[in-house]
Amino acid sequence: MSDRKEFRDLADPEEAHEAIESLDLTPVPETVPLDDARGRVLAKRIDAELDVPGFDRASMDGYAVRARDTFGADEADPATLDLIGAVHAGATPEVTVDPGTCAEISTGAVMPDGADAVVMVERTTEMTGEDGDDRIEIRTSVAPGDHVMFAGADIAAGGRALGPGTEITPREIGLLSALGVDEVPVRGKPTVGIVSTGDELVRPGDDLHSERGQIYDVNSYTIAAGVEEAGGEARLYPHAGDDYDEMERLLVEASEECDLVLSSGSTSASAVDVIYRVIEDRGELLLHGVSVKPGKPMLVGRVGDSAYVGLPGYPVSALTIFRTFVAPAIRGAAGKPEPRTATVTGRMAVEERYSEGRMRLMPAGLVNDESGETLVYPVDKGSGATTSLVEADGVVVVDADTEYLAAGEAVEVTLFSPDVRAPTLLGVGEDDPALSRLLDRVERPRYLPVGSREGLRRLRDGLPDVAVVAGPTSRDAVATRDPTGNGDPEPAETLGAWTREWGLVVPTGNPDDVTGLADLVDRDLRFVNRDSNSGLRVSLSNALADLAEERGTTRREVTEAVDGFDRAVRAHESPARRVLAGDADAGLGLRATAERLGAGFLSLGTQEVRVYANPGRTGKPGVDRLRTAIADADDVFASLAGYER
Amino acid sequence: MSDRKEFRDLADPEEAHEAIESLDLTPVPETVPLDDARGRVLAKRIDAELDVPGFDRASMDGYAVRARDTFGADEADPATLDLIGAVHAGATPEVTVDPGTCAEISTGAVMPDGADAVVMVERTTEMTGEDGDDRIEIRTSVAPGDHVMFAGADIAAGGRALGPGTEITPREIGLLSALGVDEVPVRGKPTVGIVSTGDELVRPGDDLHSERGQIYDVNSYTIAAGVEEAGGEARLYPHAGDDYDEMERLLVEASEECDLVLSSGSTSASAVDVIYRVIEDRGELLLHGVSVKPGKPMLVGRVGDSAYVGLPGYPVSALTIFRTFVAPAIRGAAGKPEPRTATVTGRMAVEERYSEGRMRLMPAGLVNDESGETLVYPVDKGSGATTSLVEADGVVVVDADTEYLAAGEAVEVTLFSPDVRAPTLLGVGEDDPALSRLLDRVERPRYLPVGSREGLRRLRDGLPDVAVVAGPTSRDAVATRDPTGNGDPEPAETLGAWTREWGLVVPTGNPDDVTGLADLVDRDLRFVNRDSNSGLRVSLSNALADLAEERGTTRREVTEAVDGFDRAVRAHESPARRVLAGDADAGLGLRATAERLGAGFLSLGTQEVRVYANPGRTGKPGVDRLRTAIADADDVFASLAGYER
Repeated sequence: MSDRKEFRDLADPEEAHEAIESLDLTPVPETVPLDDARGRVLAKRIDAELDVPGFDRASMDGYAVRARDTFGADEADPATLDLIGAVHAGATPEVTVDPGTCAEISTGAVMPDGADAVVMVERTTEMTGEDGDDRIEIRTSVAPGDHVMFAGADIAAGGRALGPGTEITPREIGLLSALGVDEVPVRGKPTVGIVSTGDELVRPGDDLHSERGQIYDVNSYTIAAGVEEAGGEARLYPHAGDDYDEMERLLVEASEECDLVLSSGSTSASAVDVIYRVIEDRGELLLHGVSVKPGKPMLVGRVGDSAYVGLPGYPVSALTIFRTFVAPAIRGAAGKPEPRTATVTGRMAVEERYSEGRMRLMPAGLVNDESGETLVYPVDKGSGATTSLVEADGVVVVDADTEYLAAGEAVEVTLFSPDVRAPTLLGVGEDDPALSRLLDRVERPRYLPVGSREGLRRLRDGLPDVAVVAGPTSRDAVATRDPTGNGDPEPAETLGAWTREWGLVVPTGNPDDVTGLADLVDRDLRFVNRDSNSGLRVSLSNALADLAEERGTTRREVTEAVDGFDRAVRAHESPARRVLAGDADAGLGLRATAERLGAGFLSLGTQEVRVYANPGRTGKPGVDRLRTAIADADDVFASLAGYER
Repeated sequence: MSDRKEFRDLADPEEAHEAIESLDLTPVPETVPLDDARGRVLAKRIDAELDVPGFDRASMDGYAVRARDTFGADEADPATLDLIGAVHAGATPEVTVDPGTCAEISTGAVMPDGADAVVMVERTTEMTGEDGDDRIEIRTSVAPGDHVMFAGADIAAGGRALGPGTEITPREIGLLSALGVDEVPVRGKPTVGIVSTGDELVRPGDDLHSERGQIYDVNSYTIAAGVEEAGGEARLYPHAGDDYDEMERLLVEASEECDLVLSSGSTSASAVDVIYRVIEDRGELLLHGVSVKPGKPMLVGRVGDSAYVGLPGYPVSALTIFRTFVAPAIRGAAGKPEPRTATVTGRMAVEERYSEGRMRLMPAGLVNDESGETLVYPVDKGSGATTSLVEADGVVVVDADTEYLAAGEAVEVTLFSPDVRAPTLLGVGEDDPALSRLLDRVERPRYLPVGSREGLRRLRDGLPDVAVVAGPTSRDAVATRDPTGNGDPEPAETLGAWTREWGLVVPTGNPDDVTGLADLVDRDLRFVNRDSNSGLRVSLSNALADLAEERGTTRREVTEAVDGFDRAVRAHESPARRVLAGDADAGLGLRATAERLGAGFLSLGTQEVRVYANPGRTGKPGVDRLRTAIADADDVFASLAGYER
């Protein structure tokens, strides 16, 4: 570990932009069929190769006439012309309109020789002359050219139709169709190779061996989707371990096939070292380390003839750095315009301190208060959490010299895309399967399963719209009306409540014949608990306290006798899954979970789950929607074993 | 024509929305691979099937320790532990950390048994003990859990990961990857069949017979692109003529294969009649005719089990009605959120009268004045012009009871997409090949080739940024500073000028041995002129006037002797193309055009092309860009025969 690279001379973010811009990612132009051209960018000017329309064209249903024959005609004194035939759209005219005659004509038909105007059918009357021939009474006068679209009047051959760099939307496709263009010259999509590094990475869909420390590869697919969103074409390369030769082979192979090579994935410093050496040996390193958080370990350079950017390993960091520095370069090479980035101004809901002296791209979540004003809170679960990818709505750019953001201070959030909107409901609290189903009935909710205790704490601070609390609680459910103000906490409204049956989840068929809580204390059984934020844990602790009292001992003595009382896991199904995996003999859980997973279950009681609304948000539409969903949820409670309203 | 359908009872736009909403377009859900999931919408909730991470994971490079062994350690009084081995990412730990020992550990590696915290490498020193064994000096104390991410801490098995209806962006792809999900259940894309009607339609790429009145099919590809933009899947059906049986067969076939059938294309009333009857016979017509311009002849109903909407035939009308009424229904069925529609508020640059008593969706163009304020002008070329598709930037919704929009009145423009921006330069005037190349060097210009005379008129009214004028002009180049104000016209700045050689374009090799203008007057030659807005026409008229003076006769006598003096076409290449097609013996044109098309050419002189800037816009960046482009355009003038600066 002694040769680990230190990033001492960090570049400014501006230098990083410039370094990436100095690399040439521009792909060769290509030609695509018209029906694949949407979203592409014209590589060159398109001039019309033909007149549109290609002929003088009737633009109304009616009669083709010589305008001169209609002069002076009106309702009182119509002109009468001999009808000599008809011209339909898509047919060659077989008549000539001589003086005193006219021809029936359809919209879009070719003007017959001799005719120079069209009279709308509404201003005419069909009649039969004394000789039995058809005549048309014309009750208006028209000028030459009336209701005729002349050849080339839309666009004429040789005319400039569309300029280079035009992004092709349905409208441009319309004009290209009119010109008969079925092959469109477009700018190529820059090919971006993605090399994920790390011996521990497994592709989604493959088997995962957690015991060997394997995790699914997050960055490859995330960055590939980002590349495609920016107008590039992503190519995934097999995972590279930290071996120099393998890394060199992969990076060189990717550089030969792609306009840009991105590496990402491994969070270990040794992999970064290996990449660093490969780039120095087989290319050029323009920049290593950028003064931005996250993203310090960014590399910019070349491998072979290809551009190269090394992204940090943690998913949120990798995507943030990709969006900030790499996506603009890909868009530039693809000729795509910078998207109209949406920004939202809001007030910080909490204070935030920061003093690392480099620019910070702070992932931020949004919540609207009842008046629609936006509150902003930092999302920093650290340590490579992938859930923060979806728990943040955008980024607040914090200057290197800003050390403190006060609660209530106005900040600007750059949204991840212009279509991002604040969730309609921000909930926190207990992890509960009924709640999860209820949230399916709310549009765009966000729920942070922080547990009952932490949920109550956050409700008290006033940030979330609702908190979901299970089991007995020692605290009143109250919330401050405004997380940035100093108002006194007020009682929270109960939106709805239900009960759930809890107890011990045991292996299918209960092979150890566990009969109750006492067995955990008295027998040699491996137990899995929930963490102390969980309402289930509170109910269990109370039950153990009762047992201790029965036995005339302390609760501590009882809990210390349970093997695994401190083996706490985070979500409601986790203990049951450990039991089914053979890692434990009993776990804390719900009847509903046990039945769903096909495990055995020993009931220890029921506990209440209560949904509290922040008193400052009771009128928010999302809160209202959840209130209604709970009221209408008989089907949900009926579908879950052990649940009752 | 007597049984033509009249649309007397027009429905409100709101009724049309409701009728379309009452049709069910919802497709069946499907499953797509993770790397195709971007942009799709989750069909159901995704719960975590595993803990992420799946094991207790080091989140720093350093040493795995028992936290208790470090209590009290600091820089002054470090703890010393025996190094018993190493654990790397992606490997099963082969050591157990007993009291007094530690193991080297990489970020991402599995915590070995016994260890409950990690000490960052920066706070340690490697040393060799007296016995030769490796020891690690620990210069800080850590608490249990420090720098460890516990199994399930990111998301735990059974936890709610993503809700139904979530649009999948790179961030969601990240979370799905972390969960190992490689097949994603998504909402199906509604299949939309497009039946174009009209005997005159030809698919782009196929041969066009203009003499038979054929035109390229614009609506099929335009609407197909619109369908895909809205999240549907478009399917094109062969063109239907106006024959009942054929139309019935096609509509029924499409209804069996699609969730929604759209018809569009024919502008003739008889085709609408045929469709109308098919829908009444084979389905149900909910609504015919909507009180909106454009779009009156819209039909809404069902064919077989499929929803049906009939769009108007003219491309701008078809796309506008599609966007307003159909796209929202497709997005709804696909589960896509309504896009954040961008609107721009601007001032009407001209007055606009309207009194048809129905809501109007007025296509509008944008131009920014020098201060960045937006001016709005109606784009209505009528008669099915396809160029208006790209000459408008959005739509102004004008209420049915608004009869008059004053110049200067504020209006709101709904942009065609949030990324639409006003062109950087709005030019009008002469059609010129050098100018066309110069515009390639300006970002997003818009140029309306209305001719020199009309260009000067529009410049005088103050709307465009520049006007391009060729040949002798009888008017001063002036512009009002503000098209909505009453300021006096001011002289326009000349941005640049060049000359071009003009004359007669004749067939290759000049088979008729045309020697000059006199031949057009004296011999039986078919001539093609340019329209009277063209600067070329002015130069020609002057030359013919000179000829008349030489001969002691009137200009009128001379021009009347030219067969085709009034056969005027619109763009600079059109006469030459007519000559080459054998439709004329000589045409008015440029040497550059004749050489490019390989035609013969007889020079009649040179004329100046002058680019005038609106005095109120000389500081606009786009104007400046064009000024620079002209100054740097030696290559352009050198590449065009007969051009000189």
